[in-house]
Amino acid sequence: MFRYKIAVEYDGSNFVGWQRQRNGLSVSEVIEIAIFKFSGNKVDLFGSGRTDKGVHAISQIAHFDLNKLYEPEKVISAINFYLNNYAVAISDCQLVDADFHARFSAKERHYVYKILNRKSKPILDKNRVWWIRSPLDIEKMRIAASYLEGLHDFSSFRASGCQSSSPVKTINKIVLRQRDDYVEIFVSAPSFLYHMVRNIVGSLVKVGLGQWHPEKIEEILLAKNRSLAAATAPAEGLYFLSTDY
Amino acid sequence: MFRYKIAVEYDGSNFVGWQRQRNGLSVSEVIEIAIFKFSGNKVDLFGSGRTDKGVHAISQIAHFDLNKLYEPEKVISAINFYLNNYAVAISDCQLVDADFHARFSAKERHYVYKILNRKSKPILDKNRVWWIRSPLDIEKMRIAASYLEGLHDFSSFRASGCQSSSPVKTINKIVLRQRDDYVEIFVSAPSFLYHMVRNIVGSLVKVGLGQWHPEKIEEILLAKNRSLAAATAPAEGLYFLSTDY
Repeated sequence: MFRYKIAVEYDGSNFVGWQRQRNGLSVSEVIEIAIFKFSGNKVDLFGSGRTDKGVHAISQIAHFDLNKLYEPEKVISAINFYLNNYAVAISDCQLVDADFHARFSAKERHYVYKILNRKSKPILDKNRVWWIRSPLDIEKMRIAASYLEGLHDFSSFRASGCQSSSPVKTINKIVLRQRDDYVEIFVSAPSFLYHMVRNIVGSLVKVGLGQWHPEKIEEILLAKNRSLAAATAPAEGLYFLSTDY
Repeated sequence: MFRYKIAVEYDGSNFVGWQRQRNGLSVSEVIEIAIFKFSGNKVDLFGSGRTDKGVHAISQIAHFDLNKLYEPEKVISAINFYLNNYAVAISDCQLVDADFHARFSAKERHYVYKILNRKSKPILDKNRVWWIRSPLDIEKMRIAASYLEGLHDFSSFRASGCQSSSPVKTINKIVLRQRDDYVEIFVSAPSFLYHMVRNIVGSLVKVGLGQWHPEKIEEILLAKNRSLAAATAPAEGLYFLSTDY
């Protein structure tokens, strides 16, 4: 048995998400089918993190096992050959130790959330950003974000249906970057609750729009009550960026 | 009569280009129809520069005349309302003097050409970049580009069918920027020959791939012979960036 670690880029717009579901095509499913077509192995593909319908990945990490040893370059080109009709591609492949696990060996995960902050709607970035017309105050959003860094009970930013055993997580870093009409929010943590990044972004945007004071984010965090935080930010602005092992 | 200057963003993938043509839908045509629907005026829309099938615009500039005076904000929202089914949007509108002309008043035009330089094919940037797998030597491309700056006879980079009266043009600046896997080539000039940017990019890429020495670009330029330069770079990497008046 040989274990392969792959990096995957995908446009989440036309998938039900990373994970297999009954109601449509998932990213992991089309990759599993492509792997089967080239190797004849029915594999279980384990991803570093699940992404929802509409969420993209710049570099999702996953692993799977094959009976045979292949050159990693050959694995990339063979899978990509069968993925050709889908908005998915393997960008890297490495042979790894049998105890490597894309999900459980992960030390830190990185997401970026992209906002287009201008009056006219996204054209070249359709389905790639959250479009917000009114100007965002980035400095206030940075202050608000600082309350969320570190170890906290993130119940207020946890979606129902979250399967995590505890609401306590550690955000290592939230960085906001403004460039032209774009605002990018980078969030890094060992692991996340369900919808955590999108729920945080929804609340930071309330601050950026001047509807909330930055300090309200701390109040919401301490209240441990999901109903106090803002609505979940749209899926299309979210990108799974990378994973550290 | 009131003259309006507009800035237009579009995804050129599904248009025959900026200019009206018999074989399909053009960007200017869908905007003219949208203007007619809101104002009742059958206008001629004059663009700052024509773009070919597949070429995008971050900010194409155009002008048209209406019988009535409208608030520019109203013009933007009304046109965008009728453009809603197309990958086109008006991002700015200003009332201008009757002697302003989007094409003839232009002092300098700016294009950017985007290359994705990595092994795996573009997914999130599908139809937005020229994908080149082999590594490009940017420093050599910069040397090559420097031969093209200034006033020259650009016959070697001029496509057949070019309607310009002279092949002599002045490139004010060519700037190459590398960021992650992207190479962006910014070209600024008062005006361009037909396919000039894409023909230049095609030849710079030959240098970047090590197939040509940087000095070959000067030889090609001096030879004034289109057959010596490289093939035209693909349309999908080219963006009309802006116009100075």
